[in-house]
Amino acid sequence: MIAIDAMGGDFAPQAVVEGVLSCMKNNIQSGIKVCMFGPEKIVSDLLSKLDPDWQKYNIVIQDTSELIGMNDEPVQAFKVKKNSSLVRAVKAVAVGDCKAVVSAGNSGAMAVASLFLIGRNKGVDRPALVGLFPVEKGYVVCLDLGANADCKANNLYQFAQLGSKYARDMLKIDNPIVGLLSNGHEVSKGSALTKEAFEVLNDAKINFFGNVEPHHVFSGKVDVAISDGFVGNIFLKTFEATAGACYSILQGRDDIKKELKKRLSLSKQGGALLIGVKKPVLIVHGNASAKIIENSILFVTKIISEVDVENYKVVPC
Amino acid sequence: MIAIDAMGGDFAPQAVVEGVLSCMKNNIQSGIKVCMFGPEKIVSDLLSKLDPDWQKYNIVIQDTSELIGMNDEPVQAFKVKKNSSLVRAVKAVAVGDCKAVVSAGNSGAMAVASLFLIGRNKGVDRPALVGLFPVEKGYVVCLDLGANADCKANNLYQFAQLGSKYARDMLKIDNPIVGLLSNGHEVSKGSALTKEAFEVLNDAKINFFGNVEPHHVFSGKVDVAISDGFVGNIFLKTFEATAGACYSILQGRDDIKKELKKRLSLSKQGGALLIGVKKPVLIVHGNASAKIIENSILFVTKIISEVDVENYKVVPC
Repeated sequence: MIAIDAMGGDFAPQAVVEGVLSCMKNNIQSGIKVCMFGPEKIVSDLLSKLDPDWQKYNIVIQDTSELIGMNDEPVQAFKVKKNSSLVRAVKAVAVGDCKAVVSAGNSGAMAVASLFLIGRNKGVDRPALVGLFPVEKGYVVCLDLGANADCKANNLYQFAQLGSKYARDMLKIDNPIVGLLSNGHEVSKGSALTKEAFEVLNDAKINFFGNVEPHHVFSGKVDVAISDGFVGNIFLKTFEATAGACYSILQGRDDIKKELKKRLSLSKQGGALLIGVKKPVLIVHGNASAKIIENSILFVTKIISEVDVENYKVVPC
Repeated sequence: MIAIDAMGGDFAPQAVVEGVLSCMKNNIQSGIKVCMFGPEKIVSDLLSKLDPDWQKYNIVIQDTSELIGMNDEPVQAFKVKKNSSLVRAVKAVAVGDCKAVVSAGNSGAMAVASLFLIGRNKGVDRPALVGLFPVEKGYVVCLDLGANADCKANNLYQFAQLGSKYARDMLKIDNPIVGLLSNGHEVSKGSALTKEAFEVLNDAKINFFGNVEPHHVFSGKVDVAISDGFVGNIFLKTFEATAGACYSILQGRDDIKKELKKRLSLSKQGGALLIGVKKPVLIVHGNASAKIIENSILFVTKIISEVDVENYKVVPC
């Protein structure tokens, strides 16, 4: 059973309900079950409107009465709104009713709720957002994509360990090669933070490549690329914005645009995994469409079957 | 007269000499004059080999005996190798023999030499690398693209002032809108550094838009985007690497690839201007081709005529 925050995201609950229903219809044989958290009447009315026979699918609804907004302060929202769709969905995973949770709602509140209710893996100080970037051949694991704007060297070292485990499980790579995203590949390059992290990684039991620049990531020189959450977020968003600029330029040439999108899109993952907490938590972009919600359910299903996040412990430096 | 470091770059002196010669041939009426710094015999032999009549162009050679390597430690190299092509080229600008300098050599050494010999504008603590990014309509001024990996809020405030002046002069924009590159457009987003800079910029005499994400930059929501040099460098290189990934995917479809390149390429600028020093210093990527060298000479010529860097003073916060 996958917990879904029905009220999370800019287009919720419409996009979420549509996405869930579409996922169930398109994957009847998969055995996927979802539990939607939201005001029962609103969610069931929407489901009925979209498909009067929705009850034949493996969808259950858990009634919630509160809502966490996109601009609510995360810690405060978590503490006060215990009966919100977001907190209840996370809690369902924490207590074992569901195996994973998906939300396009307030990402800060999702991180806080996951931290407090599900808890961190042993040795992890700061969970990170991890994603798979399409490269020339296959994918590269990149983290932190935005959970921690300010990091210490030890956080990056933990990200390297978590990313390596994820590459092993999701990409089936033995002894993954880790690169430190930097402003130059030379040893002398870096910020005060990355220079310190370089030393730590160099001395550690990590298959450490050294500094990498963005083009090294895209050429697949490493299997895992790590950075703090501010830099990783700029990396992610610059990638998406540049691809977007290409699509605009190619307007009208739909075949080529489609091919580029197919090769560069991150949308098949639906969202980013919050790695370093003991259960799969998929944090989806607030502007998620129904299609993205559908993809996120499929992606988290893959994570449940292939990634043993419960045992992702890390060692200190 | 433009000073050129003939020995700077991975493909120097060949690429530099070719680029200079091509520039002179293609712009006979422009009145461009260049002074090449390098071992006289090597440079003149190369010129003669490429064009026995090279002396009919406005090219002079200044003999130098030392070489700063790409991996030399910048401050040390500057102090010890006073007769290197790089230091001599910068010095020629400092003493007024040349109006601007172009080098694809050791960028750290270029920054150090420019700082010590040419000097900073009044009020500037740290000069930055500035570039123009192609957006939907026109260009956006982005800095720092890599000169300062670690910054303080006051540095970003100075970059905002320098970038505004540059947008005014190069893009002819009155009262340019400045955005702070961040991991979200909301006021609450940012790193410790950008949050502090946000406060400073908000209180200052700057036409401050607030936080911007990469897609806001590409959609032209602001005229100037500022960041520290580490983040700016990741932004620049992710942009270029993503565009590169698109070109690879479009391999074989040369017409479309060419169109994308034309719209997205930064190569017309040849390099990035070191803004905050009193004379135009263009720092070119080490892997510069002859074409890039040619473009950099044309670009710096435009800077000389349109940008009064000598008077780019800034105020403290």
